[in-house]
Order: sequence, then C-alpha cells, then structure tokens
Amino acid sequence: MRLHHFHSSSTSFRVRIALNLKGLEVDYVPIQLGWSSGDHDKPAYREFNPQQNVPVLEDGDATLVQSLAIIEYLDELHPEPPLLPRDPLGRARVRGLALYVACEIQPPNNLRVQRHLAAAMGADQAALSRWQRHWIDVGFDVLETQLSRSPLTGKFCHGDTPTVADIFLVPQMYNAQRKVVGADLARWPTLRRIWDACVALPAFDRAKPQNQAGFESPVGH
Amino acid sequence: MRLHHFHSSSTSFRVRIALNLKGLEVDYVPIQLGWSSGDHDKPAYREFNPQQNVPVLEDGDATLVQSLAIIEYLDELHPEPPLLPRDPLGRARVRGLALYVACEIQPPNNLRVQRHLAAAMGADQAALSRWQRHWIDVGFDVLETQLSRSPLTGKFCHGDTPTVADIFLVPQMYNAQRKVVGADLARWPTLRRIWDACVALPAFDRAKPQNQAGFESPVGH
Repeated sequence: MRLHHFHSSSTSFRVRIALNLKGLEVDYVPIQLGWSSGDHDKPAYREFNPQQNVPVLEDGDATLVQSLAIIEYLDELHPEPPLLPRDPLGRARVRGLALYVACEIQPPNNLRVQRHLAAAMGADQAALSRWQRHWIDVGFDVLETQLSRSPLTGKFCHGDTPTVADIFLVPQMYNAQRKVVGADLARWPTLRRIWDACVALPAFDRAKPQNQAGFESPVGH
Repeated sequence: MRLHHFHSSSTSFRVRIALNLKGLEVDYVPIQLGWSSGDHDKPAYREFNPQQNVPVLEDGDATLVQSLAIIEYLDELHPEPPLLPRDPLGRARVRGLALYVACEIQPPNNLRVQRHLAAAMGADQAALSRWQRHWIDVGFDVLETQLSRSPLTGKFCHGDTPTVADIFLVPQMYNAQRKVVGADLARWPTLRRIWDACVALPAFDRAKPQNQAGFESPVGH
C-alpha cells in the first residue's frame, strides 16, 4: 500500500495515526501543498485523483480518498486493534465526534477555503488568522462540552483506548496550536487531557508533521 | 425513534432518505433554522445537543448527531436494504464520494459559515451567492469526473441500487438548484442522470424539503 500525503495536512495526519495504531507499514509518497501552487494543482495529480486532495491510499489498482473512508477501510481489513467500539451506539458516538471535526471544524480552515477567502473576499493574513481561530474556538468549545459531560468519555474520547474520535481530534488540536491560529489549550481541559494521553503514544507522536520526511516549518496559511 | 430535523437542511434530508429507504417510521420533530435566529440558537437546544446542529436522532436515552454517523447506525441495526456495498473497497468508494459532499461541498455553504462570512468578511447577498455557486461548480465538476470515468458507477453512484453516496449527492443537488445558487444541472450529465434515477424513487421524493411539515419556501441564504 502507498499513502500519498502531505506532512502538514491534518487529514493526512489522521491516516498516519491509524496506520501506526494498526502497525501497518506502507510507502509514503509526499505531496507538497502550498499557498500559491502545489503538487495537487498539477494536471497529473488531478488525473490520478480528481478530488485533488490528500490523503490518497493506493491498494493494488484501487485509489481510496477521504480520510474517514480510508480509516474505516483499514479497520475493516485489519480489525485489531479496533478503532471503533463494538456496539452500534458507541460507534455512532465516536463517528459523531470525528465527523464534527471533519465536517464543521476542519473545512472552513482548510487551504482551498483560505485561498478562496483571499481571492473572493479580499481577506488578508490577519483576517484569515481571525477566521481560523473563530472555528477552532467555537468547535473546541462544543467538543469540550460534549466530552466533559458524558460518562462514556474515558482516558480517551471514548473509553480507555484510542478510537477514530481521537484520531480526528489530535491533528485538529495540533493545527490549533500553530502560530497562525495561536489557540491556548488551557481553555479546554478535557481536550487537553485527551491530547496529553494521545501524544504520549508513539503511534500519535510518530505521525506528527515534524516527524515526516520533507518537513521544514509549519505552513503559514 | 425521533428525528430532530429542519425541512430545508441538506443534512436532515440525507437522514430522511435513509429512513425512507429502510422503511422506518420515526417521529419527526421540526427544528427551525434561520438567518437571524432559530431554534438551534436557543439555550435549551444547546443543552440537548451541544453541536447545535441538525439532524439529531433520539433512540431511547441516546442522542445521535452527524448525518453519516446516524445513517451508518441505521444501516448496522437494519441491514436491509444495505446502504453500503458488501466489499470493503466498494464501501470505501461509496464513503469517499459521500464524504466529499459532506466535507468539501456542504461545509463552506452551510448556514453558520454564511452567517460568519457576512459578520466577519462583510459579505452581502450577491457575494454569498457567488461563494455558494463556486463550491457547487468546483465540487460537482470533481464528482462528474470521478463518477463518469469509473466502471463502478451504474444507474446510481455505485451500481444499480442507491447507496450512501446517492443519499449525500441528491440533497446537495437540490440545494444547488435553489434560486440563490442557480446552478444548471446540464453541466453535469452523469450527476443529472443519477439525480433523475434517485428522485423517481418515492424514498427520495418523500424526503424533499417541500414534502415536510412546516415548509413554506426555500431559505434565502
């Protein structure tokens, strides 16, 4: 299997964690994303992946897109350790947490939306920083409430082993701490506690952007 | 089971289709979303659902959020007819299509992002319409390419029975045709063909906004 990924993309980060938790070795193919241009803008990449995003998992002739679809696929083929609870209600809770990150925190802050804010709305760097911080603050406040009041929250988002919810939360918290966003995790004690528990695990730590080939510094935007 | 939903929310529309395809009867609880204020802004709703969004499925004491999590839950508890293929690669393809809608087309156009564009970027109605149309055009171009060139595409997005991919595509296409967005489906012949096949099914037709209690007219924003 080959994973086409970008070191600083939070969606790539998610799949790297899942691969590490499963103990799966794959070939990593770096895709460079950037503000003014990037590998994903090139015709050859569009031909390979019409969605023009990362990550992409190649497995034989198949090319799989969208981080949650890739992670569910890995979990179906390699069930141990499970990344979703066994019970349907628990699975729905974990997916509901992961999808809140995937659909409501990450999208307004991703590179293509940032670029379009600059192009269509004339947003400058300061406005883009405020925009990103807004969605982090609103989103993490929601997750702090949801996680702190549920008896199902344990050492991790759901019980005492990492699940898809943690796999989606940690890369978003990593991004929130970048200088351009500047969030202070002290505002969200439950998230902070879960972050600490996750990054203490080698599977999460090894997946961090700075531990990938080609990493130089955080992307400005 | 009770579904808290808004007639004109595309995420609610997805769950209504899934319930109809499964032949499940639930109590529908209308939640009014609106530009200036809505039920989702009220403290009681935030207490009920910290994510302050729709849809929410109540099943006994459990409250489930996020449309894909709810639909996967329904599919696990009521496996017939299946809304995902049986093979892991097929499941990944269908989820990858649905998640492209869920994470890359719908989020920049949802109500809370529109509201924040107006508040933080000073976007007026014309700018908001152009913004929405941009993500529809870019997103549907991607899906048209992906669907038209795959031999796995059939009468529907994946083979000849409706799946989660169609359940996510149709509400987004419905929204794209609203006056405020004004997209012409002729640009995307494969999507158009799949739309026609879907809306010919009572499960999709009955789930449309105009067939819900309380529907008056499309939301302007």
